[in-house]
Amino acid sequence: MKLVCRQDELSTKLSLLSRVVPANPTHPVLANVLLVAEGHSLALSVFDLNLGMQVSIPAEIETPGTLTLPARFLNEIVSRLPNSDITLEAEETSVTLHCGSGRYQMQGLSADEFPELPTLSDVEPLALSVELVLQGLQSTLFSASTDESKQILTGLHLKGADTGLEFAATDGHRLAIAQFPESQLENPLSVTIPAKALRELERMLSRSPAEVVCRFDTAQVAFEMTTEQGQERVLCRLLEGQYPNYGQLMPNTFSRQITLDRQQFLSGVERIAVLSARKNNIIRMKIDPEQQQLDLSAEAPEFGSGEESLCAQISGDPLEIAFNVKYLSEGLKAMDSQDIQIQLNAETTPAVLSPLSGRKSTYLIMPIQIRG
Amino acid sequence: MKLVCRQDELSTKLSLLSRVVPANPTHPVLANVLLVAEGHSLALSVFDLNLGMQVSIPAEIETPGTLTLPARFLNEIVSRLPNSDITLEAEETSVTLHCGSGRYQMQGLSADEFPELPTLSDVEPLALSVELVLQGLQSTLFSASTDESKQILTGLHLKGADTGLEFAATDGHRLAIAQFPESQLENPLSVTIPAKALRELERMLSRSPAEVVCRFDTAQVAFEMTTEQGQERVLCRLLEGQYPNYGQLMPNTFSRQITLDRQQFLSGVERIAVLSARKNNIIRMKIDPEQQQLDLSAEAPEFGSGEESLCAQISGDPLEIAFNVKYLSEGLKAMDSQDIQIQLNAETTPAVLSPLSGRKSTYLIMPIQIRG
Repeated sequence: MKLVCRQDELSTKLSLLSRVVPANPTHPVLANVLLVAEGHSLALSVFDLNLGMQVSIPAEIETPGTLTLPARFLNEIVSRLPNSDITLEAEETSVTLHCGSGRYQMQGLSADEFPELPTLSDVEPLALSVELVLQGLQSTLFSASTDESKQILTGLHLKGADTGLEFAATDGHRLAIAQFPESQLENPLSVTIPAKALRELERMLSRSPAEVVCRFDTAQVAFEMTTEQGQERVLCRLLEGQYPNYGQLMPNTFSRQITLDRQQFLSGVERIAVLSARKNNIIRMKIDPEQQQLDLSAEAPEFGSGEESLCAQISGDPLEIAFNVKYLSEGLKAMDSQDIQIQLNAETTPAVLSPLSGRKSTYLIMPIQIRG
Repeated sequence: MKLVCRQDELSTKLSLLSRVVPANPTHPVLANVLLVAEGHSLALSVFDLNLGMQVSIPAEIETPGTLTLPARFLNEIVSRLPNSDITLEAEETSVTLHCGSGRYQMQGLSADEFPELPTLSDVEPLALSVELVLQGLQSTLFSASTDESKQILTGLHLKGADTGLEFAATDGHRLAIAQFPESQLENPLSVTIPAKALRELERMLSRSPAEVVCRFDTAQVAFEMTTEQGQERVLCRLLEGQYPNYGQLMPNTFSRQITLDRQQFLSGVERIAVLSARKNNIIRMKIDPEQQQLDLSAEAPEFGSGEESLCAQISGDPLEIAFNVKYLSEGLKAMDSQDIQIQLNAETTPAVLSPLSGRKSTYLIMPIQIRG
């Protein structure tokens, strides 16, 4: 294998791939990146047996070939090289890298040892716009659980039918849903994808072209993007198990409704959070229809107390309700509208937040019951 | 006490002061900031009995008064407030803060409990330009030890005489010196100041006016800056003990001399550091006068090896020498010249680096003895 490529292009892709490489792999080769030099491009892959990524960069291939190299180590060196041409030359599993004033010798492992990334090429592809996928992820992904013991809740549930496509994520305390009725699917779909993999997909998509092709089988999913340099892919195992029937959590009617400025609400919540963080993370919300005012408050015994009074359009009776302040602020941050709507019934039943413009989504939070 | 001040001004100063406040103070009041409202300004002070800082902001004082409030807590709230007027009103030790839509109640402690910051006002002041002090700090401070058990070496030594002023810092492995022969002192000076305090001073000076006034007594030092809002001060205890006689470490003559581009040298060192970091942090340097070339190299057994070949002007015989890569890169980063000079004698005696332009300084590193 011998090739020449650009430092900036190689560095960008390696920093993307290095994030996925396990720190303590079950087999040494899984800490490596697979290099495949062929035609006019260099393909780079990492795969920890659950999550795999494959990208390409243009390269002048003098001698085609394959090899694996330590991914993080290669990334650290390449990211520090000057922005010029890099020459990679392999002899057996030993690689010499030339760039500017530097020569680096690296010990790799044979490509034969690297596990093959499934292509799912015999599965019917589902093409989605990058915009739709990004909207779906940005509106829901933050609600998935980060606690590995929560298993299926660490994933994002994707449901498709002739009524449209739906993204949903819940950690048991809050639930985020994004619906796309315009994306009607002939064949029904219902899968749970690890949130970790989707965060990497989100990162890749933000610099990607218009379309992403998804291929699902019973155990895994592949996302494919066609770039100028060739196919880029994220592949991962699906989560097993029954995803909660979250639809039944959503109340059918609401007796109270609040409309207010999202940014003002979020800023107030973040200030009150300074107090909440010093006690139990609880923020209290007092709905005052008479004054058309929403009061946020929290107390921290040794420090003091805080209150924010926000103008709001309120319909329904007065109510006092409390939430985990983190759930409230994360939900508000994930929206991008000027105004939002809060719908609720009682201090013990879920509240539902939704933006009034921009990206459409629904965010449900369970309140916290407080004494006194 | 009742006053009105600007959120942005209060927030900037609180974030500066909060850095100094101890996380686990020996007495609760030391976690607080002292507020003194008087005339047309609000003075803010923190003091952990070793290190103290005092700053001022303009304020409309309706009722003068003094009080202490939890420094970090106040900072966290104020930094999140909108950029508008803040009203602070105290009743006994309870303060109400109003700003925009928010009202915050805070529990303070009486100002009487707050230890007095010594003023050293009866000591002869020494006026220095901010530029000189910043140059002295930036060229040396990084060489002080961060290991608290190293006691006197955690400080910066300041020596003044009729021959000029000298800043020096060493951790036992390297030594940085900045000399200012133009700053001649009538009364000789020889003090060791904690590097921690000087890092805070550096932060304050970078947004300060032209002059800093220093006052030393046998146990402490105060740095005073006059700003539009009044006096700002950093005060700290001096370190006790005999500072090493570092002057004797500096060789009188050198048999070898290298001149090369600082940025190229630093970049090469930082790439080789990727390998060094995976073994013993050692970087090898081969001085080749015949080729007028400096070769940097390192090996990391399981990963590989790297070599950087740099053009240099070299006089003297060939030599191989090794250094701790961190000491080399930190020294090069602290300089700002285009070219630097390395002077050395043998592989077991110190090497001395100095910039050929810009900020003047001298940086001495002990080599590492390597086998084979």
